[in-house]
Amino acid sequence: MEVPKKLLNSVDSCVDEALSGIISSNSGLSLLKGHRVVVRSDLETLRNRVALVSGGGSGHEPAHAGYVGAGMLSAAVAGSVFASPPPSSVLAAILTLRQAGASGVLLIVKNYTGDRLNFGLALEQARARGVPVAMVIVADDCAFVQPSKAGRRGLCGTLLIHKMAGALAEEGRSLDEIVTIVTEAVKDIGTLGVSMSPCSVPGCVPSFELPPGEMELGLGIHGEAGIQRLKIGSADEVVKIMIDHMTNPTSQSHLPLNTGDTVVLCVNNLGALSCLEMAVVTRAALTCLEGRGVRVARVTSGTFMTSLEMTGVSLTLMRTDEERLRLFDAKTTAPNWPNLSRGAVSGRNCIVELPKSVLATELSAEKEGPLSAVTRRVLEAVCTTLLNQREQLNTLDRASGDGDCGNTHALAARAIQEWIHSHVIPGCPGKVLSALAGLVQEHMGGSSGALYSLFLTAAATPLSGRSDSAAWADALHAGTEAMRRYGGADPGDRTMLDALCPALDELRKLSEVPPGGEMAIWQAAVQKAESGAESTRNLTARAGRASYVAAERVTLPDPGAVAVAAILRTVIAALGSDK
Amino acid sequence: MEVPKKLLNSVDSCVDEALSGIISSNSGLSLLKGHRVVVRSDLETLRNRVALVSGGGSGHEPAHAGYVGAGMLSAAVAGSVFASPPPSSVLAAILTLRQAGASGVLLIVKNYTGDRLNFGLALEQARARGVPVAMVIVADDCAFVQPSKAGRRGLCGTLLIHKMAGALAEEGRSLDEIVTIVTEAVKDIGTLGVSMSPCSVPGCVPSFELPPGEMELGLGIHGEAGIQRLKIGSADEVVKIMIDHMTNPTSQSHLPLNTGDTVVLCVNNLGALSCLEMAVVTRAALTCLEGRGVRVARVTSGTFMTSLEMTGVSLTLMRTDEERLRLFDAKTTAPNWPNLSRGAVSGRNCIVELPKSVLATELSAEKEGPLSAVTRRVLEAVCTTLLNQREQLNTLDRASGDGDCGNTHALAARAIQEWIHSHVIPGCPGKVLSALAGLVQEHMGGSSGALYSLFLTAAATPLSGRSDSAAWADALHAGTEAMRRYGGADPGDRTMLDALCPALDELRKLSEVPPGGEMAIWQAAVQKAESGAESTRNLTARAGRASYVAAERVTLPDPGAVAVAAILRTVIAALGSDK
Repeated sequence: MEVPKKLLNSVDSCVDEALSGIISSNSGLSLLKGHRVVVRSDLETLRNRVALVSGGGSGHEPAHAGYVGAGMLSAAVAGSVFASPPPSSVLAAILTLRQAGASGVLLIVKNYTGDRLNFGLALEQARARGVPVAMVIVADDCAFVQPSKAGRRGLCGTLLIHKMAGALAEEGRSLDEIVTIVTEAVKDIGTLGVSMSPCSVPGCVPSFELPPGEMELGLGIHGEAGIQRLKIGSADEVVKIMIDHMTNPTSQSHLPLNTGDTVVLCVNNLGALSCLEMAVVTRAALTCLEGRGVRVARVTSGTFMTSLEMTGVSLTLMRTDEERLRLFDAKTTAPNWPNLSRGAVSGRNCIVELPKSVLATELSAEKEGPLSAVTRRVLEAVCTTLLNQREQLNTLDRASGDGDCGNTHALAARAIQEWIHSHVIPGCPGKVLSALAGLVQEHMGGSSGALYSLFLTAAATPLSGRSDSAAWADALHAGTEAMRRYGGADPGDRTMLDALCPALDELRKLSEVPPGGEMAIWQAAVQKAESGAESTRNLTARAGRASYVAAERVTLPDPGAVAVAAILRTVIAALGSDK
Repeated sequence: MEVPKKLLNSVDSCVDEALSGIISSNSGLSLLKGHRVVVRSDLETLRNRVALVSGGGSGHEPAHAGYVGAGMLSAAVAGSVFASPPPSSVLAAILTLRQAGASGVLLIVKNYTGDRLNFGLALEQARARGVPVAMVIVADDCAFVQPSKAGRRGLCGTLLIHKMAGALAEEGRSLDEIVTIVTEAVKDIGTLGVSMSPCSVPGCVPSFELPPGEMELGLGIHGEAGIQRLKIGSADEVVKIMIDHMTNPTSQSHLPLNTGDTVVLCVNNLGALSCLEMAVVTRAALTCLEGRGVRVARVTSGTFMTSLEMTGVSLTLMRTDEERLRLFDAKTTAPNWPNLSRGAVSGRNCIVELPKSVLATELSAEKEGPLSAVTRRVLEAVCTTLLNQREQLNTLDRASGDGDCGNTHALAARAIQEWIHSHVIPGCPGKVLSALAGLVQEHMGGSSGALYSLFLTAAATPLSGRSDSAAWADALHAGTEAMRRYGGADPGDRTMLDALCPALDELRKLSEVPPGGEMAIWQAAVQKAESGAESTRNLTARAGRASYVAAERVTLPDPGAVAVAAILRTVIAALGSDK
């Protein structure tokens, strides 16, 4: 096995540099000189309150420095990666907090032998100096059916104890009271992890090998392998295995969980699981728990206690009541406590109905008008043109894109044909364009669908209540502008705009022409569109898919521009035949 | 390449299930029926305020649903993985917010063609229905020296726009005002990413191949490869390359950054970088910027806009002033906005000195007393014993542990010898034990060092001001209890306790013995300790390193218990020789 490359400066400096990065970023945190001890910057606020100290090996960030702040820890002591911190640093933390006026100090320790011994030693030394100090050991691991003499390991459930003890300390409760309350809470917490990868201590090979497609169940947070190797199943299956194991009464380390119980759920990213997967696992855990009649009061899902870059997740459950929830919900300034909402999770309706007025607009009935027959004839002609030109457009597109331009336009044509035969054609041209916008958006797909739909939607506005030649010119202008604005192309970029913009230039003359002369201008505009489309033969694509193809290979006109010119010609021809 | 296994239920359901997981966990979020649209649950608070909508493809979690809340977004619209959301969903979001009473709606869109078109289309459709709606396009990518026609991509800087626009909307500012302010801000934001791995859309092979030890510079967030491939350097080197590239004036997409400028820095985990590395990179970025005379006002380091499970990091810089900082600092209930402190980053002293009283205690001078000579003789005898037994203890340890028990005890003995010769021996036995606790903690190391130190520290307390036989018995009792409490072993577990506890039982008789009879009891206690140590030959280890060795292979006594018995015999013999 190879030693994986990491984004660090050196193995020796990484812990101190990481602490420096964490502290520098948060003005609420400071470093105790000469020690890997992160303390609250506002130590003066600890006067006559109980101070809280936690910590352990590094490599579990954001634990524990990220939980230092008002309402959580007063200090966090870090060891080297996956190694317990020296007792001298724990002692320095305790004495500093006492000196700041803390009435007592509570050590919150994860149940690992090294941490027990080193925090214990500091406790005894502090007590020998007259500091009122106590220790709570968190042992929330549900992995082992028969735990060894060392007992259950301390895992992510530790954060819940940080949180509750922190809230109690902030309220001014005594050391004894806090110890009593959180010692009870520790018994009601269980945690279990799974991972699809090992992790590697900086400078070292991975902690174990895991073939692709397999996962470890019941890991610690120091890269130690789990209690069982399984095939990676679906998220629902994996979560069910985890919760079954955590709550199995035949396991000595299980968390008793019954129908009607209320829990806090913490879904913890062990390091490298994607946030998408995290969210799916969170849903799976909620569904599984609610399926057993367990009420989930709060969920916190994120990165809380990691095992370096392990691709895994742990679930922590805490049986809770109103008082524990109150402490869980209490305010904290700790940088890595999430911005949680305080509402209950289970039993809430998370679905908002669309307002009736929105649905009503979508379904509003239209009436035929005097223009409806003309509109029908024009649309039928456009559809016929597009279906006839299908292969020609595909051929042009094969030279510069993915060869489906004709197909895409045919999809739109078919959808419009069907709409004409099954719906009332609105009498207002603006409403016709809006309806067409919806059709091409839904049926044409891709960028072309979005661009046509944009064009039609923007063009509809000038046509609400007007349908004279000037209104139509305004409509084409508005539609083209919308295409340019959102599509990001300009004339000369080898797109539909190379047909549309020359036509628009011609249509400016409409404002100066005497009544009856409009049709000549419209016909001239069609010719400008066609010559514009033809001119794209010599242009280099700077937008759309054709921009990824080498310019010398593109010698035919742009199919989008050709289609636009053909549509314009068909519309004008159909209108002219009416006169 | 293989399709990597992910912790999901299915490719088709993953986006909807992830949204369900996110919404269910946060009572402040709800889902718009029939759409992948996350809206604030408290829509009624939008009355007469501007509402904000953002969104884009999924796979970037926690963006954008995690930024929905008071003071940030009103709604987030999600597409499929790495695909722009349909305009119909964007429109549904806009109309729902308008219906809730919003005075206008601002769309905040990352600059990708699909998002521009689909959000643009929804905007035009909403505007056609009379909704005051505007769009701000975020284009913060600094990767391309000569960006294509499509312009700079929209990346993690988008969040800063969410935040500032959200704060402005919360203040009741008008749509026009908000557009003006954030349009200016967009120009002052730059982002660049690096990655040591590709990512893979669920059900697909990875987006590109990257040999171990190499990294891509300047990636997008859709798994697209970067602009340059580099060897993975140190964190400092990589960060320097990134900031150099981002601010290089010869690049068309650079962020102008000069000495004296003030910035907000966002260090964003692209998915799977360990939090340890993230913190080291954060420090590197701060150091690099401050080294250029740039003042860093705020840092936010965490997981903000991911590219699924990409092992990479992006840096975002925003040139800032007091007004922008005020908006950045404003309160939000969005679940994934971090719990940031509001103090300035650059220029702060993050180091807290240890209180003088703490240092003073450590250095307090001691005076010799009448017992000092006895103590010196006893300690010298103990050191000699331990050095003489070194090989015997190593041999015993080789049978059950790692064979260094004698060496470890020798380290302690040497340290004590040196201390005796270079320090004043305190007259008070309690202070002697405290000093020895410090010595073994520092020099002996490992669990043995911690356990001896615990023993000595706890034993010191009953000996403060007393040194009669009963006080010594109390001291041994307190020390043994501390060992049991923190070490987690009991008599019978094949540890030092199997020598200590039988001796303690014998010492109970001290309270009943007539004056002058104490030495006989102490000698009996030594014999009990020795027979206890010998009895470990038949015990199965249940604590310490020997517990990992098969019981049938362990046929010699426990070296720790043997050492304890030898120390006790030496102490009593040395004291006896005094009489």
